[in-house]
Amino acid sequence: MIVSADWVLPIEGEPIADGAVVVEDGRIAAVGPAAELGEGERFEDSVVVPGFVNAHSHLEYAVYAGFGDGLDFAEWILVHIERKARIGWEEHVANARAGAAECLRSGITTVGDASFSGAAAVACAELGLRALVYLEVFGGPEQLATRFEPARKRITPFLSDRVRLGISPHAPYSVTPELYAACLELGLPVATHLAESEDEHRWLTSGTGPWERFADALPPPLGTTGIRHLAARGTLSPRVTAAHCVTVDDDELALLAASDVAVAHCPRSNALLGCGVAPLAALRGAGLRVGLGTDSPASAVSFDMFDELRAAVLGERARARRADALTGAEALELATLGSARALGLDGEVGSLIPGKRADLTVVSLAGSTWLPWEDAATAVVLGGSPDRVRLTLVDGEARYRHGDTQWHALTAAARDARRRLLAPAASTPR
Amino acid sequence: MIVSADWVLPIEGEPIADGAVVVEDGRIAAVGPAAELGEGERFEDSVVVPGFVNAHSHLEYAVYAGFGDGLDFAEWILVHIERKARIGWEEHVANARAGAAECLRSGITTVGDASFSGAAAVACAELGLRALVYLEVFGGPEQLATRFEPARKRITPFLSDRVRLGISPHAPYSVTPELYAACLELGLPVATHLAESEDEHRWLTSGTGPWERFADALPPPLGTTGIRHLAARGTLSPRVTAAHCVTVDDDELALLAASDVAVAHCPRSNALLGCGVAPLAALRGAGLRVGLGTDSPASAVSFDMFDELRAAVLGERARARRADALTGAEALELATLGSARALGLDGEVGSLIPGKRADLTVVSLAGSTWLPWEDAATAVVLGGSPDRVRLTLVDGEARYRHGDTQWHALTAAARDARRRLLAPAASTPR
Repeated sequence: MIVSADWVLPIEGEPIADGAVVVEDGRIAAVGPAAELGEGERFEDSVVVPGFVNAHSHLEYAVYAGFGDGLDFAEWILVHIERKARIGWEEHVANARAGAAECLRSGITTVGDASFSGAAAVACAELGLRALVYLEVFGGPEQLATRFEPARKRITPFLSDRVRLGISPHAPYSVTPELYAACLELGLPVATHLAESEDEHRWLTSGTGPWERFADALPPPLGTTGIRHLAARGTLSPRVTAAHCVTVDDDELALLAASDVAVAHCPRSNALLGCGVAPLAALRGAGLRVGLGTDSPASAVSFDMFDELRAAVLGERARARRADALTGAEALELATLGSARALGLDGEVGSLIPGKRADLTVVSLAGSTWLPWEDAATAVVLGGSPDRVRLTLVDGEARYRHGDTQWHALTAAARDARRRLLAPAASTPR
Repeated sequence: MIVSADWVLPIEGEPIADGAVVVEDGRIAAVGPAAELGEGERFEDSVVVPGFVNAHSHLEYAVYAGFGDGLDFAEWILVHIERKARIGWEEHVANARAGAAECLRSGITTVGDASFSGAAAVACAELGLRALVYLEVFGGPEQLATRFEPARKRITPFLSDRVRLGISPHAPYSVTPELYAACLELGLPVATHLAESEDEHRWLTSGTGPWERFADALPPPLGTTGIRHLAARGTLSPRVTAAHCVTVDDDELALLAASDVAVAHCPRSNALLGCGVAPLAALRGAGLRVGLGTDSPASAVSFDMFDELRAAVLGERARARRADALTGAEALELATLGSARALGLDGEVGSLIPGKRADLTVVSLAGSTWLPWEDAATAVVLGGSPDRVRLTLVDGEARYRHGDTQWHALTAAARDARRRLLAPAASTPR
């Protein structure tokens, strides 16, 4: 199988005009000019990029768009927890299917998914989306037996080389030091939420601020920040991917770097929840592996990686007051190879080089104002959208083609879950 | 004619579930429940909003997406000026037609357009887009005779109650005090660019910084900021709409408020050029009329008002570190009634109340994760896109319907202009 287009952007290697990618047995066999490799299936006015790697998602929250929008973080998470308790396994699976389908339609080929129920593993196995499914745990170490093990058993039939297991101790404000340590000892990939908001910082360090009113529902405050706490306990490692890292000081950057912790940057979620803008330049400057994540519709409203890319570029340039603070090419690398590195999967995905998995996305700029081309990477990043995705391949198999309506059917199937999540709140717009 | 949908959001007045808008002779005759007014043309899973009012655009730059992306403001504007000089009237008209069509497809029914050549008036008259076309002038007062008058004569046949004339002295760094004063004396609506970047601020106040190298091409620095300068000269007025206002201090806010100057907030342009985030809360808090503008694809990459709305919400919430800093409902008002007020057109457009012009937009959320509804305004703002626009009415006439391909044909027609603008630069992605 050969895919060719006006541009191939391998990320590792220079852009190739009129380029082609040769796929054999689910892997990339060659990348180069179509004139040498053959045209195969040719996409006009299009760009071939590595499939996007979503460094932090929650597929199960696919139909949560707008829930509690405008509430502060603590109130928002309480609404979220209360509503989530209303639905069960079948609905989590239906939601995760919708989420996986929306990811594929957005050109995403791999997710690092923090999964409340494990349903993400079922959905990813069914839909062919590559995944690291981190089963979520909360509270104390007993959750390894009461929560992690049952979920692991339930999803074991769906695990494979493509859908792998991880664990996600939720956050330093919701997980005891003992559970963090126990999670690390399992030897699995670990995802966690770190340093997301000022309110979290204030609660953890001093037990004060807006979160004080939820003291009964949380472990005791730590007297220090989450990052310092985990570092002191020896529970940071290269196997840890930390979402957010918005409120980090220089010493915390050094602690993260010393342990080679990776970061999933989630700019839409951080902005919409009023958490702020993570210091992307400082995170990268400290040598950390940084990827891009959509988080979930519960905060970021969609799995649209193009919207996430634009939010990353706008947020970073506005904060740095530099037009070159994050170029289109740098943003594209962040959402592909950067995320793959952050998940420890860069040996297999994240760039278009021979030997890697044939995970790729074709984005069409046809009919837009981006042609003729000046800068194909910027055109994809600032001009792309799910509606412009023509083809998404995972392991060389077409998992989404423009015009497919599977995503639409799966979203409709999940709508009942949204209805139950919303009831009995009146459906009155503010 | 009656248009009905799941929600009608009149902006002035509460949201109406299963609402309808009755149109007679190009004006709104009634707004209320469809059960009372009749269903007419019913849009499922949809919202009726006032047509978006684009408070600051440059339709002529419709095919400039990505030009010079990553350059600092001064370098970027030089690239822009050099390229713009390569094309002539016919190409400006072709570009403006593409821009007007893209606006209508994005649900925009009115533009406040700063027009280099006047071509925007031709395009808006042809396509039925309501417009205030501000003819741009630069340098000294002789431009009223050498530039403004010839352009005014050329576009006079295209002016009407719907397409009106204004003048745009470009900016305090490119226009002498005498030309500003002469523009104000004309009695026309005035648009200008104010306080866009730190570099501009530094140049104007001290003649130093990155702009020093362009000293020969600019009027002498003012020794003060543009806002202080215009205020001292008595050339601020309620007829002035100022784009940007990113770098404003409290005294400048007071000066703008004292003269009732309006502001066009352009968050995508400001972010992408590295100018920063305008202090929206402070601008509104000072009592200024503030609207939302897409600026042009040359900086903001498109006329997509939905992308602009999202950038406004993300930017404001991230800066204020509050999830409720700009709600969906507030953002929607900013892009409709807010912009109408900023252009002095709120007696005629910007909200759905009887007697106003029948300018409205139908946005469908069908197939998305926003249904069932929780908050229709937030769904439109955070979930809308040009592809979700079903109908755009101006003066009660359908100027865009989903599936129309006029925008596509007009964009293709303008592609030759982009080709000439790009030549002879090689089309090599960075």
